[in-house]
Amino acid sequence: MLSAATALGASALVSGSARAAPAGAPPGAVLYEVPDDPTKEQGRPLLADGGYGTRSQFESEVRSKAGNPTDLTSWTFTPLAAQIGNLTPSGLHFERHHGGIPTIDPARHQLILHGLVDTAKRFTMADLKSLPSVTRKHFIECSGNTLTEWAKPTAKTVQVTHGLLSTSEWTGVLFSTLAREVGLKDGAQWVLGEGADASVMTRSVPLEKMLSDGMIVYGQNGEAIRPEQGYPLRLLLPGYEGNTHIKWLRRLQVSDRPFMTREETSKYTDLMPDGRAKLFTLQMAAKSVVTFPSADMMLPKPGLYEIRGIAWSGHGRVQSVEVSVDGGRSWRFARIENPPEPMCTVRFSLPWAWDGQPATLQSRCTDETGATQPTRDELVKLRGLNSVYHYNAIQSWAVAADGGVSNVHA
Amino acid sequence: MLSAATALGASALVSGSARAAPAGAPPGAVLYEVPDDPTKEQGRPLLADGGYGTRSQFESEVRSKAGNPTDLTSWTFTPLAAQIGNLTPSGLHFERHHGGIPTIDPARHQLILHGLVDTAKRFTMADLKSLPSVTRKHFIECSGNTLTEWAKPTAKTVQVTHGLLSTSEWTGVLFSTLAREVGLKDGAQWVLGEGADASVMTRSVPLEKMLSDGMIVYGQNGEAIRPEQGYPLRLLLPGYEGNTHIKWLRRLQVSDRPFMTREETSKYTDLMPDGRAKLFTLQMAAKSVVTFPSADMMLPKPGLYEIRGIAWSGHGRVQSVEVSVDGGRSWRFARIENPPEPMCTVRFSLPWAWDGQPATLQSRCTDETGATQPTRDELVKLRGLNSVYHYNAIQSWAVAADGGVSNVHA
Repeated sequence: MLSAATALGASALVSGSARAAPAGAPPGAVLYEVPDDPTKEQGRPLLADGGYGTRSQFESEVRSKAGNPTDLTSWTFTPLAAQIGNLTPSGLHFERHHGGIPTIDPARHQLILHGLVDTAKRFTMADLKSLPSVTRKHFIECSGNTLTEWAKPTAKTVQVTHGLLSTSEWTGVLFSTLAREVGLKDGAQWVLGEGADASVMTRSVPLEKMLSDGMIVYGQNGEAIRPEQGYPLRLLLPGYEGNTHIKWLRRLQVSDRPFMTREETSKYTDLMPDGRAKLFTLQMAAKSVVTFPSADMMLPKPGLYEIRGIAWSGHGRVQSVEVSVDGGRSWRFARIENPPEPMCTVRFSLPWAWDGQPATLQSRCTDETGATQPTRDELVKLRGLNSVYHYNAIQSWAVAADGGVSNVHA
Repeated sequence: MLSAATALGASALVSGSARAAPAGAPPGAVLYEVPDDPTKEQGRPLLADGGYGTRSQFESEVRSKAGNPTDLTSWTFTPLAAQIGNLTPSGLHFERHHGGIPTIDPARHQLILHGLVDTAKRFTMADLKSLPSVTRKHFIECSGNTLTEWAKPTAKTVQVTHGLLSTSEWTGVLFSTLAREVGLKDGAQWVLGEGADASVMTRSVPLEKMLSDGMIVYGQNGEAIRPEQGYPLRLLLPGYEGNTHIKWLRRLQVSDRPFMTREETSKYTDLMPDGRAKLFTLQMAAKSVVTFPSADMMLPKPGLYEIRGIAWSGHGRVQSVEVSVDGGRSWRFARIENPPEPMCTVRFSLPWAWDGQPATLQSRCTDETGATQPTRDELVKLRGLNSVYHYNAIQSWAVAADGGVSNVHA
């Protein structure tokens, strides 16, 4: 029962029998023997974890790759079906980077704010942390989330169809606070954000958005933001597509026009049916997905189940979520499990008595602007099939008579 | 720049110079070389972390021991001064256990609910997860938090004076839901909670509290609760003293009277000035503390600082927080940085222009019941000096002319 540790990629059992090693134990996990009666054996002492705790050896969900990313430009998906509550554990936050994860010393990192300002300034991390801060809970969704569903449904799990979505409590300085520090000049309309990674990731953001709720964040879920999420500094734009939340943020340039960077011309535009591309479709639309039951699961037998899912909108608060078990012919309002906050996920649920017959489960979100998540047919009618990004149609999961759940286009 | 890992207690530098190893790098941290210009070097690839991410190598805050605990019955303190925002990272949540941390297989764990009920029942973890759930953010505070301050101030940091306090988003089943499953009999007034650890920790809780907001939780900050916090199941009693939130929960027994267990007779009572002990002083009172600047810090020079702190109450929402820089002679209302939730911490802040003269910093919390945090003199007048638990007096930090900050009784 004493503490010990192993190298990442291997697992070791501490003073005990093989019974203690669960099937899916994560790589590197320290495995403790499981006593027959834990009340008859002294538990392990404190600080065996070095003072920074880890998950139970029985918890093994991880972010995963999909869609053949290369080793260098890549993304990983949050295991949404395993998420409990309305936060994504920082270690499971989805990631997307365009030049790998840089290693940045916060003592040397600076943010430059210049362009159409009265006085250009550099801010150290200490400068930023000494300014008034705000703490807000928001989701970030990659604009490419659910892009698998434009084509025939082949993605096998909700982790792959919807896992480019995560929710954190973010802490940092409002851009409006920095703007008062430097003074904005007449004509200021756009702000460029630039990352310190190997892709020098850049996006243009309307000044109006930056001033209304744009944040320069250094905190995530109570501690410094994680390396994959932009340590030590990230731009946070509530409700905007993920790639605009520039990670490893090092520069903000105020201008009278957008900068037409690589990532807003060759990429991250929406190709319409007529062959023209829409630029700057920045706000993520109302969306939801059932996470239980979802594809690749098996319901053991007919009976009472609690349908569970996640809903969100980049346009404001979630107003309501409806659930259908008959492929959209009839709908019932789901219970919203937490007070809706602006540009933040909610968890929803609805009890369901499954009679053992085939069923098609769906959910649809309506946000406070009145916008409702479209069916796939409605979305395709509007947008065609040339698009890659911003797929927000209703997701369908088919439950077969044997209890198997699969991804279908209803 | 490739990934690698080392045994806990050692650190290894990955393909790079010693410059990359920060002074306080945590044990076991994987250290990556820091490039001079991160935009000129491809960053590290995804999933070097095995799919469950960790902190930056530059972040090294840990829970710490203090007060000479033994190896077996012990506590660790949350590093409050380093906390960003209003959540405690799960790995830094304070811990207190009476028989060590047991290792429990969730597939074999059950909760028994019996006593004055119509039908006693056992619930597996799967049973509990299939019931309607709620997600709520609450603090947990050990009744012994700040017990150092009954005596002359010797504790050197806010981690030791106030670090038995942490805040999480908790997910689980309301006790009222389970009560409907089993049916309560006439005369039911109290509920015993029992843990599956080596101390078989037990406390009696008023049924009224259990029915109003008592939760059986399996989720913490988006994932399964951590082993130190009661994996796989814990009782959560918003605003009640920490020891009643029974960890590794295995049994709930409904009764017509309290059970007068060891932990509510020989311990966790409040010895009054007349030598009699108060039992069942369960709700934590209104309290707050300045975390920056706090003891053992050094202000480099006179100038503008952002005073920051945490406030909470076990009786409801925080209504207001006031800050004094002159030892309580004058007070100003602090800015509350997040919407107050019931029995949940808030972060507060106030700009302060330090003139270089000695100053005494204090904060006081008022909750929605109108209760205000007392001065130390007021608390001692009421409670005497026999007490161990439930110290909630205003905390004073003295700032000397040289910028050094220390713990004082003002």
